[in-house]
Amino acid sequence: MSASAQKHVPPQAGGTLPTEVKDAFWARPIETAGWCFTATGSRFHIHASAGAARTPLEKIADAGLVHRLTGVTPEVAINTLVDLVDETPANLRAACDEAGIRIGSLCPNLSRDNRFRFGSLTNSDAGIRATARDLVTRCLEHADTLGATALSLWLPDGLHYPGQADIARRYEDLANELAQISGQVPDGLQFLLEYKLFEPAPYYTDIPDWGTALMLAETAGENCTVLVDFGHHAQGVNIPAILALLMRRKRLGALHINDRLNADDDLTVGAINPYMMFLSFCELAASGMHEDIRFGFDQHHTTKSPLMATVQSVCRVQELWLKALLVDRAALAEAQENHDTVASEEVLQSAFWTDVRPILEEWREERGLPRDPMAALAASGVLAENEIRRK
Amino acid sequence: MSASAQKHVPPQAGGTLPTEVKDAFWARPIETAGWCFTATGSRFHIHASAGAARTPLEKIADAGLVHRLTGVTPEVAINTLVDLVDETPANLRAACDEAGIRIGSLCPNLSRDNRFRFGSLTNSDAGIRATARDLVTRCLEHADTLGATALSLWLPDGLHYPGQADIARRYEDLANELAQISGQVPDGLQFLLEYKLFEPAPYYTDIPDWGTALMLAETAGENCTVLVDFGHHAQGVNIPAILALLMRRKRLGALHINDRLNADDDLTVGAINPYMMFLSFCELAASGMHEDIRFGFDQHHTTKSPLMATVQSVCRVQELWLKALLVDRAALAEAQENHDTVASEEVLQSAFWTDVRPILEEWREERGLPRDPMAALAASGVLAENEIRRK
Amino acid sequence: MSASAQKHVPPQAGGTLPTEVKDAFWARPIETAGWCFTATGSRFHIHASAGAARTPLEKIADAGLVHRLTGVTPEVAINTLVDLVDETPANLRAACDEAGIRIGSLCPNLSRDNRFRFGSLTNSDAGIRATARDLVTRCLEHADTLGATALSLWLPDGLHYPGQADIARRYEDLANELAQISGQVPDGLQFLLEYKLFEPAPYYTDIPDWGTALMLAETAGENCTVLVDFGHHAQGVNIPAILALLMRRKRLGALHINDRLNADDDLTVGAINPYMMFLSFCELAASGMHEDIRFGFDQHHTTKSPLMATVQSVCRVQELWLKALLVDRAALAEAQENHDTVASEEVLQSAFWTDVRPILEEWREERGLPRDPMAALAASGVLAENEIRRK
Amino acid sequence: MSASAQKHVPPQAGGTLPTEVKDAFWARPIETAGWCFTATGSRFHIHASAGAARTPLEKIADAGLVHRLTGVTPEVAINTLVDLVDETPANLRAACDEAGIRIGSLCPNLSRDNRFRFGSLTNSDAGIRATARDLVTRCLEHADTLGATALSLWLPDGLHYPGQADIARRYEDLANELAQISGQVPDGLQFLLEYKLFEPAPYYTDIPDWGTALMLAETAGENCTVLVDFGHHAQGVNIPAILALLMRRKRLGALHINDRLNADDDLTVGAINPYMMFLSFCELAASGMHEDIRFGFDQHHTTKSPLMATVQSVCRVQELWLKALLVDRAALAEAQENHDTVASEEVLQSAFWTDVRPILEEWREERGLPRDPMAALAASGVLAENEIRRK
Repeated sequence: MSASAQKHVPPQAGGTLPTEVKDAFWARPIETAGWCFTATGSRFHIHASAGAARTPLEKIADAGLVHRLTGVTPEVAINTLVDLVDETPANLRAACDEAGIRIGSLCPNLSRDNRFRFGSLTNSDAGIRATARDLVTRCLEHADTLGATALSLWLPDGLHYPGQADIARRYEDLANELAQISGQVPDGLQFLLEYKLFEPAPYYTDIPDWGTALMLAETAGENCTVLVDFGHHAQGVNIPAILALLMRRKRLGALHINDRLNADDDLTVGAINPYMMFLSFCELAASGMHEDIRFGFDQHHTTKSPLMATVQSVCRVQELWLKALLVDRAALAEAQENHDTVASEEVLQSAFWTDVRPILEEWREERGLPRDPMAALAASGVLAENEIRRK
Repeated sequence: MSASAQKHVPPQAGGTLPTEVKDAFWARPIETAGWCFTATGSRFHIHASAGAARTPLEKIADAGLVHRLTGVTPEVAINTLVDLVDETPANLRAACDEAGIRIGSLCPNLSRDNRFRFGSLTNSDAGIRATARDLVTRCLEHADTLGATALSLWLPDGLHYPGQADIARRYEDLANELAQISGQVPDGLQFLLEYKLFEPAPYYTDIPDWGTALMLAETAGENCTVLVDFGHHAQGVNIPAILALLMRRKRLGALHINDRLNADDDLTVGAINPYMMFLSFCELAASGMHEDIRFGFDQHHTTKSPLMATVQSVCRVQELWLKALLVDRAALAEAQENHDTVASEEVLQSAFWTDVRPILEEWREERGLPRDPMAALAASGVLAENEIRRK
Repeated sequence: MSASAQKHVPPQAGGTLPTEVKDAFWARPIETAGWCFTATGSRFHIHASAGAARTPLEKIADAGLVHRLTGVTPEVAINTLVDLVDETPANLRAACDEAGIRIGSLCPNLSRDNRFRFGSLTNSDAGIRATARDLVTRCLEHADTLGATALSLWLPDGLHYPGQADIARRYEDLANELAQISGQVPDGLQFLLEYKLFEPAPYYTDIPDWGTALMLAETAGENCTVLVDFGHHAQGVNIPAILALLMRRKRLGALHINDRLNADDDLTVGAINPYMMFLSFCELAASGMHEDIRFGFDQHHTTKSPLMATVQSVCRVQELWLKALLVDRAALAEAQENHDTVASEEVLQSAFWTDVRPILEEWREERGLPRDPMAALAASGVLAENEIRRK
Repeated sequence: MSASAQKHVPPQAGGTLPTEVKDAFWARPIETAGWCFTATGSRFHIHASAGAARTPLEKIADAGLVHRLTGVTPEVAINTLVDLVDETPANLRAACDEAGIRIGSLCPNLSRDNRFRFGSLTNSDAGIRATARDLVTRCLEHADTLGATALSLWLPDGLHYPGQADIARRYEDLANELAQISGQVPDGLQFLLEYKLFEPAPYYTDIPDWGTALMLAETAGENCTVLVDFGHHAQGVNIPAILALLMRRKRLGALHINDRLNADDDLTVGAINPYMMFLSFCELAASGMHEDIRFGFDQHHTTKSPLMATVQSVCRVQELWLKALLVDRAALAEAQENHDTVASEEVLQSAFWTDVRPILEEWREERGLPRDPMAALAASGVLAENEIRRK
């Protein structure tokens, strides 16, 4: 290990960090998601959860509270096929205005419609595909009213069994449908396409990996980029590298940040492997293009208060993001050039092990935010109130 | 490869097979499961399924039909916390009598009870543990009336997050509860304990693997044995070997036969890797103790008719079981003694590739059963009828 | 399940099969690989293997014998960085002529060169990249003499640790090197690019998945296609689908056929999951473009005679390939159109369970080949001879 | 989250920590391993590594240097089938004395012996089993001379293919051999038994998981305990829980600490998931029995200086171990009792994120050790010297 790589100076207080780091830190918004505030469970059972949001307006209220506590979650994603059914666009907008936030991603989740049991945008029946496409794009009419900034698409489509359908035919049909959708997305909105290895389809999902998603995005149109959900990969796959290659191709659009051990567990950030999340953030920080990439959540909270879990995830993202910004890139580049594997690793580890919590507390206070958003939420009484009001 | 190992004589017709093979074949009952006849889905959505059973009595009717078509499914497992709530023991028994089958396993599925969000038999609260134990054992009062033959326990217990609870404490409490339950199981009933790597708990399940299940079963009592569900393992784990070691320890009690690719996919038998199922059956056939081991199903059918899927699974089990019985054990032993890895593998492959379907058709006809149960079900009109009657 | 899907008529003898099936069957050559005939082992130890080939000429002799026994392996792949170092091109060609076979793929395996510890075509040092490129392309000078038909490239490049190198930089450099190599490949030769999830690099390999390989192949040039090794994937990945999508993109060039349970185990064909191999072959058979796709082997034999293991693999490929040709595509299409998941699966299973061994024996005899190549090899005395001659 | 759980006070300097923590920290020795100082690679190639140890005495010299730099590695494990062949016990002992360390574990690694291709202690040939047993136990004659403290056994035994051998027979034979070995282990020495999911055998290893290892250890004798290598598990398996259950059973004997992404990658500590290592250490720290459990390494260094990599691993273990000691157990217990999943997780995370490096530097200085052992090694010139001396 070279001597220079070793000379890390861990920051002792926020004040000593370069201004660029602080600026880059605060330039990082995180989108919350309305459905993350609701009760959830497993295929066996949805656990009733006292305090969880039950309506579109409660979801927005929760998202607004998270923003007031953290100052970095100005947008909330909504499931258009629930929230725009149960509530009018105008009411959603008004609720957002009151909560001090905006609608971000429009997420039409097609998984709850029996018509799509054998595929939505991949169905062999052109009529069913059109129905699905219509459900996806209908929300775009309200994009203006809602002030939305993205159309974000995840498909429940796939095969349960070998032979169930013609995979290449489905790919073709899907590519065509996505191109049509792409054409309908208004300028200024991202069109995000998500992939997932399995679930709900166990044998094959129609967009199983980043390679398929990238091909589809490139065919669909210039506005189409890939959304990477950290829980949607096979075991052993290197996610930081996927991010690097998608950015190189200018097709990384967004992240769904969560953690997992075995399946798409949708746990809060850093619950299983915070180092891998840090390494992912390092790729983004090094790319110089992270400002164009949306940070969002897709999580399900069965044993945590959804509201507290979201605040916890925001704080953890902030900590890991700041650690990624602290990486000494010059030292890293030098160690890499020298093929000094220990030194290059230690540059990363040194940033990772830096305790950024005191810095964050200071920085939050400067902005008039609670030093410790989780403690502030715990102390606020809101959780207890919600448990009573939202039975 | 030795010359002798090569001299396999694939059976050309059922008549040429040794009587022992035929006897061992027909001595193999398979238990169906009531819940496998119902509509199912994912954590996102339960797909309504026209034709699926909706009530305990419809489940029993379906199980009876499977037995009439195949002749090898005289017992049906029930979820006591659903079926004994919705129906009286006497009515269930009467329905079974009418359907020509018996209740087999009593399966109290604790996953749908909010009280057990943080554990049932593993909860830190002794009162909640007692509640769970009571729910498990209450059905034993009706074991006689129902004519049941086993108490089969799978627990939804586990941890969503690191730190959530003390794993060793939970193990102790669980061991104590299981010992109490073991003491309440009447003579003549099996007490089956199931393990599962993940789901619904993502970070840790309290009985994650066969080692934990075996330790718990041995502590619980002489009547407690392990139930192996093929979908409940980590990737790459050798299930045939687990069966061999559990049998050696005299603690293999039952199988839940299904297939999977990524998670506990609960697919029909042989859908992904029929060879691995065959290898598992080979271990059972070679052990000489398979008659004491229950064959059962735990499957969920989202894109298949549950009734047809069950008949399909029964037929596939029969085919793979017969192939396992056809293995030339003398040739296998000789090849193994010679360390002739190719020859020993080919003995297995030779049995696996034998087309047993004509033999099975003949044998079924001899017993007055439909030669092709799936075709018979398709031709019967029952599926169409059910789609109308069971909206 | 529809009635028509059910009416499968399993072929009773080769004579009853359509001529097209027989033609398609015999139109399927399989390339053997010289290195598969040698002694192998693990990172802990290379097991000495009496009888294994020790020299380039012994490898070719073994490949020739496999072709004489099976009639379908007219080409052999060579590791140019071993075989062209230890032997002259002219001698290799002469040995092939004598053995009645041809050189097929030229495979420069860069893994045994200390200079490439930190990367070959991906090294940050342009000089080392040039060295590697030169090693790869030097064999092309002899392509004519050797009569070779492909340049096949697998890279040992990758990262052992996070931070070790800049992944995006490596990708760029690799893309440039591949484009240069592509330009040097003579007309008429395939340029095959292989991917692999892990090993020897544990943290990241530079071509980890089919998406990366496809991007690189498309950038490299029109002659560059992807080679899929069945053992190079993460657990749970759907390989048949990858083949379908690569064919659709006209970039599937070749297969390395083997089986595995956990890592790149390089086992003989069908050892772990023959059904998944069958499903892969079904995609090829259905595509109508399989004749352009090379079938080859990459296997390592520690407990089997390499020669016997290769014959075994050839026979198993033939059996599975014939089963794939037997799939009733009209019935499959009808079942798919009807969303009859059971029926479509049963069309596949029906072909899979057909015992094609008697057909193959007949067909081989018609061509003057041994009815059972494995038995013929066992009876030939060659294995015993080799054990004496090749100590 | 309860208010009390939130009130963590991260230690600002070593002096403020309770004496018990400091004592528990220094009471934690780590055993180095001789083979970790040598050149290594993959099954494709062993990379020559300038500077790596080449002889038993060089390994001991390296181990001694690590102890001088860190003060916590007083013992070194040796591979008796290499080190006791190449050197006399007396010379090894003398070298240790000079280096200021002791021999710890005797590790007879049977993987390099062709006789054991089809099994060592599991071979069907009793003579071969006896040969293997003899190789394992022969080193015990020198235990006194060497001053060794453990016999540590990992077996390369297993099956490459289905059918290759009778798994239950092998288990029986292995159990008998282990019982005999157990009887020969002198009082005061640990007898450690290691398990591993795969490699070198791909289909089945004879001790694949902790359940099998535990059964075998309990049968073998009172002195036999299980060694857990972190890289020897299936993906998704919860290792901290395995440690907890083995400790409860009083059969956890030792750890091989390393990290991995896909296979048994043998990377330095914390390279992939330091949080999971921390959680494992938390189980040990909480158990009150960690002093009886050996901490050791099994690592292979292809792109790092083995000497530097070992120092790096020691430092990382120390950091993670100290973090585990900092967990506020009272707060954790309270949060667990309240089923406050966020609070219990945050107690762990709070300790994990504490930057212990300044504390460690201080503590090392107090003991007359280099504040930063890696920097000290880098500055010492030893690595450069070794590169010249050990070509």
